[in-house]
Amino acid sequence: MNDAPRKYGRLQHAPEDFVADELIEQINAQGMNAARRDFLRKSFVTASAALAAGGARAQADHPGPIGDSAILNLPAQSTSLGNPVAHAAYGMPSQHEANLQRRESPGLTKRRESGVAFTPLQGLFGIITPSGLHFERHHAGWHDIDPASHRLMINGLVATPKVYTIGELMRLPSVSRMHFIECGANTAMEWASPAVPSVQYTHGMLSCSEFTGVPLSLLLEDCGIDRKNARFVLAEGSDGASLTRTIPIERALDDVLVAWGMNGEMLRPENGYPLRLVVPGAQGVSWVKWLRRIEVGDAPYATREESTQYTDLMPDGLQRQYALIQECKSVITTPSGGQRLLDKGFFNITGLAWSGRGKIARVDVSVDGGRNWQTARLESPVLPKCLTRFNFDWQWEGKSAILQSRAIDETGYVQPKINELRAVRGTRSVYHNNAIQSWRVESSGEVVNVQIS
Amino acid sequence: MNDAPRKYGRLQHAPEDFVADELIEQINAQGMNAARRDFLRKSFVTASAALAAGGARAQADHPGPIGDSAILNLPAQSTSLGNPVAHAAYGMPSQHEANLQRRESPGLTKRRESGVAFTPLQGLFGIITPSGLHFERHHAGWHDIDPASHRLMINGLVATPKVYTIGELMRLPSVSRMHFIECGANTAMEWASPAVPSVQYTHGMLSCSEFTGVPLSLLLEDCGIDRKNARFVLAEGSDGASLTRTIPIERALDDVLVAWGMNGEMLRPENGYPLRLVVPGAQGVSWVKWLRRIEVGDAPYATREESTQYTDLMPDGLQRQYALIQECKSVITTPSGGQRLLDKGFFNITGLAWSGRGKIARVDVSVDGGRNWQTARLESPVLPKCLTRFNFDWQWEGKSAILQSRAIDETGYVQPKINELRAVRGTRSVYHNNAIQSWRVESSGEVVNVQIS
Repeated sequence: MNDAPRKYGRLQHAPEDFVADELIEQINAQGMNAARRDFLRKSFVTASAALAAGGARAQADHPGPIGDSAILNLPAQSTSLGNPVAHAAYGMPSQHEANLQRRESPGLTKRRESGVAFTPLQGLFGIITPSGLHFERHHAGWHDIDPASHRLMINGLVATPKVYTIGELMRLPSVSRMHFIECGANTAMEWASPAVPSVQYTHGMLSCSEFTGVPLSLLLEDCGIDRKNARFVLAEGSDGASLTRTIPIERALDDVLVAWGMNGEMLRPENGYPLRLVVPGAQGVSWVKWLRRIEVGDAPYATREESTQYTDLMPDGLQRQYALIQECKSVITTPSGGQRLLDKGFFNITGLAWSGRGKIARVDVSVDGGRNWQTARLESPVLPKCLTRFNFDWQWEGKSAILQSRAIDETGYVQPKINELRAVRGTRSVYHNNAIQSWRVESSGEVVNVQIS
Repeated sequence: MNDAPRKYGRLQHAPEDFVADELIEQINAQGMNAARRDFLRKSFVTASAALAAGGARAQADHPGPIGDSAILNLPAQSTSLGNPVAHAAYGMPSQHEANLQRRESPGLTKRRESGVAFTPLQGLFGIITPSGLHFERHHAGWHDIDPASHRLMINGLVATPKVYTIGELMRLPSVSRMHFIECGANTAMEWASPAVPSVQYTHGMLSCSEFTGVPLSLLLEDCGIDRKNARFVLAEGSDGASLTRTIPIERALDDVLVAWGMNGEMLRPENGYPLRLVVPGAQGVSWVKWLRRIEVGDAPYATREESTQYTDLMPDGLQRQYALIQECKSVITTPSGGQRLLDKGFFNITGLAWSGRGKIARVDVSVDGGRNWQTARLESPVLPKCLTRFNFDWQWEGKSAILQSRAIDETGYVQPKINELRAVRGTRSVYHNNAIQSWRVESSGEVVNVQIS
C-alpha cells in the first residue's frame, strides 16, 4: 500500500533517490529569504557563468531571453525541437506523474471484480477529479458496453412503458452539473481505530465531476408517471450483479439525472458507460452504473443492496436501512498521512469539504487537535452537493501538531467528532462514517493517521 | 479532415456500417410516440418471449429484476463477470469513443512541432474539457520536463530577484479557478469565407479547465516588485522557441496565476508541465507554457509574438499590436458542420459562450439566419472568463434552417456578425475573429458551414 514518492514537491517520503531537492530543502531550512538568496547565488548565478559576469544586470537593462553565451547550461527542452502536436490522439499525464494512480487496498475484498480502487486525493488539486483517477467500486466487474446496443427501459406505474436508445436520450433537453460522488463505505475502515495510512485509503472513495444528462423527471413525464400512486423508483444496472436500489419519488423527480457525460466526454466504462444514474448528494451505490431500467412503484423494493448491505448496525442491534444522503464531511488532503514535511516554515494546508444536503457554508481548521479553530478560505465555485476546496495558511514550527478540518453545510449541520458519531451509531457500523479526520505531524515531519477522543 | 462517425447518437454521418440504429431512426421517423410503442413491441416484448407472456404485468405487480427465463436474451455484461478494479492505473475512454480525438488540419503549418491540434467540440458536453482532448498549439514542440530540475526565475524591477523550485511554489498559498483558454488564431480560417467543415476546425482552439496555482501577484510581492516603475512583465517559456509575451502590470497583479494544476492533476506535458502562466481572459499565446522566467519592466518588450505575430492588419494598413483580451464569442457545437440530423422532431441545440471580460449575461439562438432570436438556457455555474454551456429546445420540421448563437457578456458587449466585424477590421486579419457562426441544416439533415451577410 506504500506509494513511491513523487520526486518533487513540498511534501515527500524521504527521497533517497533524489539528491538535488534534498539539497534545496536543506538550504531552505536556514530560513526562506536567506536560503533563496543563497540558492540564487549557488545554483543559478554560479552555474551560469556568463550571466554572473554581467548577464544579470544586462537582463534588467536589455530585456529579452537569456543570452546565447549561457546556452550550454540550458536544459534540453530549450535547445531542441520537441514532440509534435497530436503526438497522442488522446493525451496522458507526464511520465513523471506515473506514481499518481488509483490503488487497491489488498485483501479488502475477495475478488478484484467486486473490489475498490481509491482516488489519490493526496496528489489532487481543485475540485474536479481527473476521470482517469475516478474511484472504482464494482459488484461484478465492469464492461465496455457498445452504446448502440444499450437500452433504458422505464416501466411500472407509468401510462406508457418505454425503451430508449442512447441516441433517443441524447436528443432530449440535457443539463450539466458538478457533483461529488462518495461511496457509502468511504472511511469505513476508520470506525474502530486508525486502520490505513493515507487519505487515499481513508477517503479515496470520493470523486467529483461535471455530469451531463437528461433529468429523470423528464423521462418519467414522457412515460406518463402515475403521480397519485408513485412513491419510489427502482434503478437497475445491466452488470452481472443486476445492481438495484430504491430511490424515493421526491428525489427521483428533483435533481436526479440519467447521465451519459462526465467531465466533458462520455462516461468512462468503469463509471457506467454509456449510462448511469446521477443522484446528487446520495451515496455512490444509488448512482446505478450501466443503467438499464427504472421502475416506478408504490413501496420500497428491499433489494439486497439496501436490506442487507449498505445498512448500519446500531447500538440497539437494529439495522438502519435505506440510508441515502451523504452527510456533511471534510478532510485535509495535504499534509496528510504518509507524507513528510521536509522543513519548517510556511505550508498551505488544503482539503475538500462536501455535503449531500447542499452547499458548504464554512470550513474550520485546527492545528492543535481541536482546541482552537480558524476559518479556512473556500475556493469558488461553491456549488450544492459538490466538492468545495479549502486552503489555510500555516507556519510549521517543527513541533508535533494535529491537523483537523470541520465542515458546516448550509443547513447548519456540523461535521461530528468520531466520538460524537460513535455515541449515536456505536462501533459496529461499516458505512456512513463522516467524522472529523485527524493527522498528526511528528516533529520529524512525518504525518500519520490518528484518532482524537 | 473527415472524422469517421460515432456509431450512436442523434447526429451522425450516414452510418453505413451500422444497421440497427438506422432501423431505429427509420421507425422514429413515423412519429416518436408511435415509434416507441412500435419499437417496444418489436424489439423488447417480442424478443423477450417470457416477458411478453405475462412478464410485463408481473413486473408491475412484483417489482424486481427481469426474470431468469429471459436470460438468453440478456447482453454479455449481464451474464458474466467483468473487468477488475484498477484494470488500468490511469483510466481511458471507452473503445467505442476512439474516434473522438484532437485532430490536425493538414497543411495548416509547415511543421507538426509548430502546429495545431484541435479539440473535438462537437462531441463534448458541459464546460470542462477532458485534459486528454485539450487543444494544442506549440511553437517548437512539447517536452516532458522533469519538474525536479525545473526553475522559475523572477527578475527585472524587483528588490530581490529569485529562483523558485516547483517544490517551493507548491508550498505557497494556492488558488483554483475555472477558465477558458482560446488561441488568438481560433476561427482564423473563417475571415474571408467558410473554409473548414466542422466546429472542431472552426472553433477547436478552445478549451476550459480548472487551474490551480499561486497568484503571480504573490510572487512579485515576494521579490519586492518596484511598484513605482513596474509597468509590464515579460513571461518567458523554456521551450526551444523561448516564447515570450508582454503583459500589462495591472493584469499581472490581478488574476494571473503561475499554475501547476489542471483539472485536478498536474498540467499535461503538452499544456506546459510543470508550470504555465494562466492569464484569464487573454489569448492563449500569453499563457506561456513551460514557464521559466518573469521579468518586470517599465515598457512593452516588443517580442516576436506581439510585434510581427498575433497582430491584426487593419483596413488602413496599420498593424494592431499587443491584443490581449479575447472578446465575447459563442458557437453552437451540436448540431454543427459535418453532422447530420437523421430525422425530424425535437433536438437539443447546445453550445458554448465565453468572454475575456467577465461573465456571460445571455445567449440568444436563431434558427432562421438571424431574423428572429430567442434566449437560450445557461447551465450553472456561470463563471467569469470561463466557458458557459447553453441549451435550446428546437423542433426540426425537415426544412432548411440556419442556426446561429449570439453571446452578450456582463459588460453589455454583443458578439458581432461577421460583416460587422469586417467593417471595422477588414478582411486581411488572421487573429481575433469572434463573429457569429452560422450552420445551415439542409433539408437532407446535413449540416454545413456557411456565412450570412
